[in-house]
Amino acid sequence: MATPSRNKLFFGSFIHSKTLAELEYLHGTAVAVDSAGKIVAVAPGHADPAAAAAALFPTLGWAPADVDIVQAKSESHFFFPGFIDTHLHASQYPNVGIFGNSTLLDWLNTYTFPLEASLADPAKARKVYTRVIRKTLAHGTTCAAYYATVDVASTNLLADLCLAAGQRALVGRVCMDQLSPAYYRDESPAAALAATRASIAHIEAIDPTLSLVRPVLTPRFAPSCSAPLLKGLGALAAERPDLPIQTHISENKNEIALVKELFPPSATGAPDDSYSSVYDAFGLLTDRTILAHGVHLSEFEAELIAKRGAKVSHCPCSNSAITSGAARVRWLLEKGVTCGLGTDMSGGYSPSVLEAARLAALVSRHVAMGGDDKAKLTVEEVLYLATRGGAEVVGLQEWVGRFEVGMDWDAQLVGLGTVDAEGGVEGVEEGEEEDGNVDVFGWESWAERVAKWVYNGDDRNTRKVWVKGRLVHERK
Amino acid sequence: MATPSRNKLFFGSFIHSKTLAELEYLHGTAVAVDSAGKIVAVAPGHADPAAAAAALFPTLGWAPADVDIVQAKSESHFFFPGFIDTHLHASQYPNVGIFGNSTLLDWLNTYTFPLEASLADPAKARKVYTRVIRKTLAHGTTCAAYYATVDVASTNLLADLCLAAGQRALVGRVCMDQLSPAYYRDESPAAALAATRASIAHIEAIDPTLSLVRPVLTPRFAPSCSAPLLKGLGALAAERPDLPIQTHISENKNEIALVKELFPPSATGAPDDSYSSVYDAFGLLTDRTILAHGVHLSEFEAELIAKRGAKVSHCPCSNSAITSGAARVRWLLEKGVTCGLGTDMSGGYSPSVLEAARLAALVSRHVAMGGDDKAKLTVEEVLYLATRGGAEVVGLQEWVGRFEVGMDWDAQLVGLGTVDAEGGVEGVEEGEEEDGNVDVFGWESWAERVAKWVYNGDDRNTRKVWVKGRLVHERK
Repeated sequence: MATPSRNKLFFGSFIHSKTLAELEYLHGTAVAVDSAGKIVAVAPGHADPAAAAAALFPTLGWAPADVDIVQAKSESHFFFPGFIDTHLHASQYPNVGIFGNSTLLDWLNTYTFPLEASLADPAKARKVYTRVIRKTLAHGTTCAAYYATVDVASTNLLADLCLAAGQRALVGRVCMDQLSPAYYRDESPAAALAATRASIAHIEAIDPTLSLVRPVLTPRFAPSCSAPLLKGLGALAAERPDLPIQTHISENKNEIALVKELFPPSATGAPDDSYSSVYDAFGLLTDRTILAHGVHLSEFEAELIAKRGAKVSHCPCSNSAITSGAARVRWLLEKGVTCGLGTDMSGGYSPSVLEAARLAALVSRHVAMGGDDKAKLTVEEVLYLATRGGAEVVGLQEWVGRFEVGMDWDAQLVGLGTVDAEGGVEGVEEGEEEDGNVDVFGWESWAERVAKWVYNGDDRNTRKVWVKGRLVHERK
Repeated sequence: MATPSRNKLFFGSFIHSKTLAELEYLHGTAVAVDSAGKIVAVAPGHADPAAAAAALFPTLGWAPADVDIVQAKSESHFFFPGFIDTHLHASQYPNVGIFGNSTLLDWLNTYTFPLEASLADPAKARKVYTRVIRKTLAHGTTCAAYYATVDVASTNLLADLCLAAGQRALVGRVCMDQLSPAYYRDESPAAALAATRASIAHIEAIDPTLSLVRPVLTPRFAPSCSAPLLKGLGALAAERPDLPIQTHISENKNEIALVKELFPPSATGAPDDSYSSVYDAFGLLTDRTILAHGVHLSEFEAELIAKRGAKVSHCPCSNSAITSGAARVRWLLEKGVTCGLGTDMSGGYSPSVLEAARLAALVSRHVAMGGDDKAKLTVEEVLYLATRGGAEVVGLQEWVGRFEVGMDWDAQLVGLGTVDAEGGVEGVEEGEEEDGNVDVFGWESWAERVAKWVYNGDDRNTRKVWVKGRLVHERK
């Protein structure tokens, strides 16, 4: 899968988010990426790659023989930033689609804890983690914020496998020392902190500059962590201001009631009993914190989260599937909270951030049906959440999420099918398989083509995927 | 695509709905289908096809040389009834995914009427209709209740193309003589009725026994039909009690207000101004009537619909996409209303009934979030709606929807991928494309495999499709 590190010139149409509301369409454009995977030029307005090369290579000091040219074939192919999955449990992947009629707390005990615990078996962990990395890469996920399990060895294995596959990742060992089954939890706060440090040390050893894989502090969620554990993690977060933090918040109403019961102000020292204040009291509500869900946050909590600069990972597939609720993304954005998208496998059923984007649009319409018509998210907005928003959520907005000089080349080549006069697809022979469900008839605007991709696209449309300039997935 | 009409013996696992709540799993089973496409034997409990043949052929009077054997390969392949799409607009297919932030009434004028009108061009109609038939067959839709357009010639072409492709279909010429653009409507009630009769005559000419394709009376929806047109269609429905009727009802709140304004009891003679009573007053609310949507029906209306025996096509993708509302399917079922699923392209964005089933489950969870936890639909229930429920909705419950002696063989072969120890898929070589997103790890129950299919399956999992015994789609 690894390709030699050479300079590359990508040519064709590039689409990325300019703002939350607006996509930028760059046609006839060349993007030069150096051997380190960095974008060194973005040059629109060229007739073909040769013209772009003639204009760019002298200024870059590149010899044509040292450059690989990657051209997007036709008018229905385009380069798009890689997706950022801001919340998923690699260890739950085998359970996607299996949740019955459960909701969060029974779902954890029935489906989730037994599977996670079983990944202490290294062979099983290797099979599952290899698969989830391959699958998410195939769906264009160039960066993923993973929860592994409580087990250090298999958490470390996940980091090893991400590095080998070339997927950018945050990898978190799960901390949980209470309200979890005896067969699956940290023995004590001290043991949890030691295990967390061990996993951090491993990841820093395999990727010393943290250029691709980095550790993330991961208290599972407040109910499964004792106050001493949360306090210890807050202290570790203060000691290591370079590390991101990830956890869950306000996913389900019973969960929220449980947090109020477990963490009254008398136990936390917080001024109130809100879920957000619990994390805040322990020093875990920071500008490096990724909060998954945020479905039932109060006005006060949204304001506190915005004030602290913590981010929200919106997980619509999961929130609908396990009947958690419909998160008010527009409202969060207007409160000044940065949001991205998470597949949240296996609360969420799909490995695809594109599916999460689609569901984010649909769920926002369910919020709108409640009376707030401006809650609706557009195609442009959900794609922003899937890329630039996600980059901010995981703290990598200076590295990935858009095509600009100085950013890393984390990208996907997207191809849509063009219907021919006989109702087949251009370039596909009778009897051959057609590549996906996006049918372009020829009269659509670019904005309409992108909408078709969002609503009917899948991994078949993601033809190639690069991370830091390296080709990490290709459809034959 | 056509295969010679020979006897066939299907062998392997068969799954179909026993009741709304329960799937039946028949393993090691043989289903014998005669050359007319009818199921003549269902025989569980055989070790292999040879054993089944030895037991069955003598009683059927079949010589082994005259029988094609179709065996489902492994433990992750199974036969399932073909899907029934109870509501879609073939003519809107090119617009799937293109709806912006619109809702019903502006969506019609902005996106829909211009496209439908343009299909009076026969070349364009052929391209679009060929494509939608090919696409829906690929997704396992063996029977579709189509709306075409106002134009007779292209409506007839749609029927011709369904017959040629071997897709079972209801084909309706759209009746609309008011509140529609001048460039796209029937000139008068009389013209609408004459055009409808012309299309019926064509379909009866090409398929005299209506064994595959049948006409359906299609008043678009009340607002676009004048009272004389509705009255004329009611009279035609009485004259032709063999013909089904399809229309829309109670999709959107503004639409409902419009109906109340256009059709007060003084104009219809109905006892009240409900949407359902309008159709009832004109003789169009019958046990042959397919009502698309039914999102905002009142208690009174649901009871009236149940009393008349009319059916509801639930279109969750559409209802969420164009922000119509969340239909209360459980409530309708408890009222005694028969329900099936519709893709409702292009209000709905997907050609897949499996996607409609998935969304039906998710939307039912949004209904549950409103407070009624029993609103949630299970995997088993949405698959019932997609097959047996749909068969009842289109009036073909004695022909299709389950595997029983005397029924037609309308079926799909579903294949799921099995993950190997290295995180690849069994039977797929390194570098080859994997077939779909359903990953079976090996420890899942059959019910869990089916759930995985519902939540992550797509057309790649539909390996072969038959209608009336004829192979109409196959993935290479």
